[in-house]
This record gives sequence, structure tokens and C-alpha cells, in this order.
Amino acid sequence: MQAALFFALLVLQGGGVVWHDVHAFGVEGKAWKGTKAPFDRLPAKAEAKVRKAVWDLSRDSAGMCVRFATDATAIHVRWKLTKKRLAMSQMPATGVSGVDLYVRHEGQWRWLAVGWPEFPVSSARLVAHLAKTQRQYLLYLPLYNGVSSVEIGVPSDAKIEKGKAPKHKPIVFYGTSITHGACASRPGMAHPAIVGRRLGYPIVNLGFSGNGRLETEVAELMAEVDAAVYILDCCPNLSGDEAGKRLGPCVRALRAKHPATPILVVEDRTYPSSFLVSHLRKRNSENRKSLRAAFDVLVTAGQKNLHYLRGEELLGVDGDDTVDGSHPTDLGFQRQAAAFLRVLRGILPR
Amino acid sequence: MQAALFFALLVLQGGGVVWHDVHAFGVEGKAWKGTKAPFDRLPAKAEAKVRKAVWDLSRDSAGMCVRFATDATAIHVRWKLTKKRLAMSQMPATGVSGVDLYVRHEGQWRWLAVGWPEFPVSSARLVAHLAKTQRQYLLYLPLYNGVSSVEIGVPSDAKIEKGKAPKHKPIVFYGTSITHGACASRPGMAHPAIVGRRLGYPIVNLGFSGNGRLETEVAELMAEVDAAVYILDCCPNLSGDEAGKRLGPCVRALRAKHPATPILVVEDRTYPSSFLVSHLRKRNSENRKSLRAAFDVLVTAGQKNLHYLRGEELLGVDGDDTVDGSHPTDLGFQRQAAAFLRVLRGILPR
Repeated sequence: MQAALFFALLVLQGGGVVWHDVHAFGVEGKAWKGTKAPFDRLPAKAEAKVRKAVWDLSRDSAGMCVRFATDATAIHVRWKLTKKRLAMSQMPATGVSGVDLYVRHEGQWRWLAVGWPEFPVSSARLVAHLAKTQRQYLLYLPLYNGVSSVEIGVPSDAKIEKGKAPKHKPIVFYGTSITHGACASRPGMAHPAIVGRRLGYPIVNLGFSGNGRLETEVAELMAEVDAAVYILDCCPNLSGDEAGKRLGPCVRALRAKHPATPILVVEDRTYPSSFLVSHLRKRNSENRKSLRAAFDVLVTAGQKNLHYLRGEELLGVDGDDTVDGSHPTDLGFQRQAAAFLRVLRGILPR
Repeated sequence: MQAALFFALLVLQGGGVVWHDVHAFGVEGKAWKGTKAPFDRLPAKAEAKVRKAVWDLSRDSAGMCVRFATDATAIHVRWKLTKKRLAMSQMPATGVSGVDLYVRHEGQWRWLAVGWPEFPVSSARLVAHLAKTQRQYLLYLPLYNGVSSVEIGVPSDAKIEKGKAPKHKPIVFYGTSITHGACASRPGMAHPAIVGRRLGYPIVNLGFSGNGRLETEVAELMAEVDAAVYILDCCPNLSGDEAGKRLGPCVRALRAKHPATPILVVEDRTYPSSFLVSHLRKRNSENRKSLRAAFDVLVTAGQKNLHYLRGEELLGVDGDDTVDGSHPTDLGFQRQAAAFLRVLRGILPR
């Protein structure tokens, strides 16, 4: 009798919502098991290996997502953030610290709902009034904040289970703030996420804001992940000299363990104000020249399965697709995803 | 001697920047002279006429811009905000409270720089290292904040003057939060701003977040503005019944003073989650049915030069162009602007 009363109170308190830790379903985009905290992007051992800035940024949950299947008529999410700063001046809190829900519908991933963050614990009913039909869902975690726990809540009469995961090896992105997700309005709109949805591949996001610097210690960590493709997209955080000097060691660090896996080398996106601001035009030009020369050296030296994406293909020609002259908006990310998809479709096995 | 020293100190303090109040160049998008504060969107007399929510929202500078011409090698902006809340959860501070600079280049408006806001006074060097060439500029003011002063700063050796203004009558938009600009990343990316740049028309933005309700008192105020086109785009803030009932009185209020000016009636955009969430699908369907019926009654009654834009044309088919299931991101605004441009190009004189 007492137990029944206690249970009734519990359900009442939770509004009839039963909460499930997402570890029950698995966290995609997390490439290592031995992490210091449950949603870290790099393994615990990396703390002694990479620069502090890289380590600190690796604790953001960028690129992580959870696949689940449920017949729930409503879906709730509760997530605990690690950082108080919910937003950036040029990126909204929904992208920095929010969660983003997609659903499989007629053979495609369709956006369904976003979760607005609060510090430290956010709890949101993402969607309600759904027909009681089993569906596949994909929940993206915050791009520029960390999470210490994530739970999915469904009504007590709902079934919920692990979702169908892609069978492919992941596409591993190593990059800058742009790869990290600045400045998407929601986590699902960063280009690695769009690429993953469109291709049906898992992705691993190793974007480190301001600190994607083609470092061999990061490449050595990447090489621990058995990837479908490795993407090296660090130019915006490097001078021309650095871009040229660092490409070779990074590629060789990957090749030491993966002699044949495709590697995609990406130039820096065109600064949209570079048509008037000459030092930005110069920076684009020097970075590209230097990266291309280093790439050609690798090819000439016999490296196989190296691919190249030109920077001028990444954004549009109207100059209107960044928020600040550097970071894509959702418009820029959609265009950038299209550029990656064009080249990746030629690289990935059919 | 003392005066020279004083002047030298002044220039030193200002870093050699000379500041110009934008009223020297004129404020476009402000349709009334008799305003309570210098950047209000409605005249002072409206305070006694419209609901308080509409009045309060009319004090945001949405849609206002300043045209100037200068040969300055650097452009600074200083603006004083009226509201402390710089951002919204799903819209970044750059869009809510920032300023946005475009430049005329090869016959087109090209984005150049954004100004990040601070409260109460923001001061930003938007761009530097420009060649010393006379150019036309367009500076957009904050979308969801008010300004009490705006100044443009240029180096003391620069010439600066009023820019070339479009000779057309303005396109007057009356709408909801979407017209108001939620959730553009920068003021220049709200669809009325894009439409204005692309057509070369001044625009007047009468978007009132959550309060664009096809009210006759607002239509009567709109009728005081001699417009190229009046746009009525309030459906998202109305029930189906209201949309139908209120269209006629609004159109008649405009027609009382402007018997022949084109009026464009716009349906509500499709909710991107409506494919699964039936009450949103129902809301879209009822609003459209009701608005269309009221529109057809007006046409049957002999009203001329009425035009109609269908809601399903406003956003894309991928469902990825809003941040929150209602408000467009820059991706959504670009698509929405394209939809408006298609219909406006058929309406405006060639």
C-alpha cells in the first residue's frame, strides 16, 4: 500500500514521464570509451598529450547524438550543462547549449524540435500530440557546451529502445570553430551533422574553436579511430606557413595506422569581406597556396587516396552566409554541407 | 595654444575618429517624423491608438537603415541601446541588438561587417584597411532592440555624406515576429531587408512580435504612408477565424486612402513539424482557408490590385530552415525573401 502510494507520487511528480539515461541507447560521435567524463570528445589520456585549450574544448559535446526508437506521444529531454555561458554574441543559446531532435520520416531525417537550454539543468518537452507509432529519432547534443547527463523522458505507457545505428565506420572531422559548429542555430545544423544525416554515416566532430591547428598529437589520436574518411579542415586557424608545414606530419600520422583510408584535405573558406579587405584576401590566397603545395608534395611522394576540397566551394557567392565574416549561419552550413557531400559521395564506397 | 592642445587630446581620445550622428544622412525605414523618440517605428500619436504591446514593440528599430557614402579606410559605429536584453535564446545578440553593414560593389549590395552589441553603448570598428575610394554604404539598425542614438565614425581625413537613396515609394510590411526579424543572425538578413536590397526599394518594417494581428488601427496608420505596396502578413499571430474576419477591415482601411496601391496578402508559413504534429497542420489549414475565403470575398466585391502569396511557398521543403519550428533562420529568411521577390516583381512597376 505504501509502495503503491510512493509510486503514484513519483509518477505525479514526474507528470507521468519516465526518464531514461541516454547511455541505455548509446552515444554516437563519441569515439573513445576511456574518457574522463561521460560526454568528452577525447580520451582521458589526451589531457597529458594535447594543448590545454584543445583539451578544454574537447569537453564540449559537439557532434554527439543519441539514436532511439519510441512510440511515445510526447518526448521530453533533460540535460545538465557543464558551462554557465549559454550563448555567444553571434550564436544563439539553442546552438551553443541546446539539444536538437530529428525523426525518420518517409526515408529521410526531418527536423522536429529544439530544446532551449537553462543552466545548470534544462528540462524540455520537445514535442507532444504525436500519434502512438514507433519511430526512429536522432537527438543532437550541445555544440559549444558540455553535458554531464542527458535523459530522454517518455510517457509511462511508451516503449523506448536503442535506435537503428548506421553500420558504416564514422567520418572523422578535424577542424576549427566552424567544424565545432559556430554559428549554427541548432546542433543539427552544423555541417558535420548535416553530412552525417544525408549520408547515413556516423560522424565524429573534432572541431576545436580557434585551436584546430593540424597538430600531430591530435592526428595520432584520430588514427586510433577506424574511420571511413578522415577530414583535415584546419586552415582557418593557421597561417599559410603553418598550413603547409603541418599537413605532411598529420597525414603521415594517419597513414602510419591507416595506409589506405581516404583523407580529405580542406582549404579555408573564402572570407566574405575579402573582396574589399585585402589582408583577408591575402590570407585566403597564402593559406591555399601553401596547403595545396604541401598536398601536391604528398601526392608526388606516392600517397594514395588523398582528396582535396577547394575553399571557394565552401560558401556561396552572395557573401551573405556568415554571421561575422568567418562563421557560417545555417545558410552557410547548408552550403558547406553541400560542398562536402559532393566530394564525399565520390570518396565513400557505394 | 590651449585650444590646439584640447583638440589634439580630443582626437587622441577618439583615436582620430570623427563621429557623425546618422540623422545627418537620414534614417530610412522610419515612416513618420512626429515620433516620441528618434528611432521609433510609429508616430507619437499611435501610443493612444494601438495596444500597449504594439506600441512597446514599435520602439525597436527593426527595418531602419542609414545610407551614407564615404572614402574612409575604416568605418566605426557607436550605438546606444534602449533595452538591456541583448539576445533571445534562439536569436543571437548580433541579430537582436547588433548593427549590420553592406557596401555597394559591382552593382550589388554586398555584406561587409556586423557590429556586436554591448549594453548600454556599443562602439565597434566594423571594418578597416579599405582602399581610400568613395563607396555607398547601408547600415542596418537592431531588429529587436531600440536605439537612442547611432553615430558613424570615420578617420578625420575621410569625406562622408548622405548616401544615394532609392527614389521609389517604400514597401510597407505589416506582420508578426517573422517580419520583425526573428530569428535572423544579423539585421540585414530579415526578409524585408533582403527584399529591399534586392529590389532597390526602401522598406518599412511594421512587424510586431506576437502582436501582428491585422488590426484596423495599425492599417489606418499604414495608410498614412504612401507605399509602393502594402504587405499584410499577420496570419501566424491569428486564429483562422480572426484571420478571416480581420482581413476585410484592414484592406478597406488602406483602400480608403489608397484606392489603387497594390496590397499583398500573405498566408502563414508551414510549421516545419506539422508533418507529424496534427494541431499545427490544422492551424495552417484553418488559417489559410479562412484568409483565402476573406480574400476571395474582397475580390468578388470588386477590390482591385489585391495579390496573394501562399504559405507553402515561404519556406523550403526540407523542414530545416527555422530555429524553433516557427521562426526562420538566415536560411529560412533567404528562402522567404525569394518567395516575396517572385510575387513582388510581378506587382511593382517595371
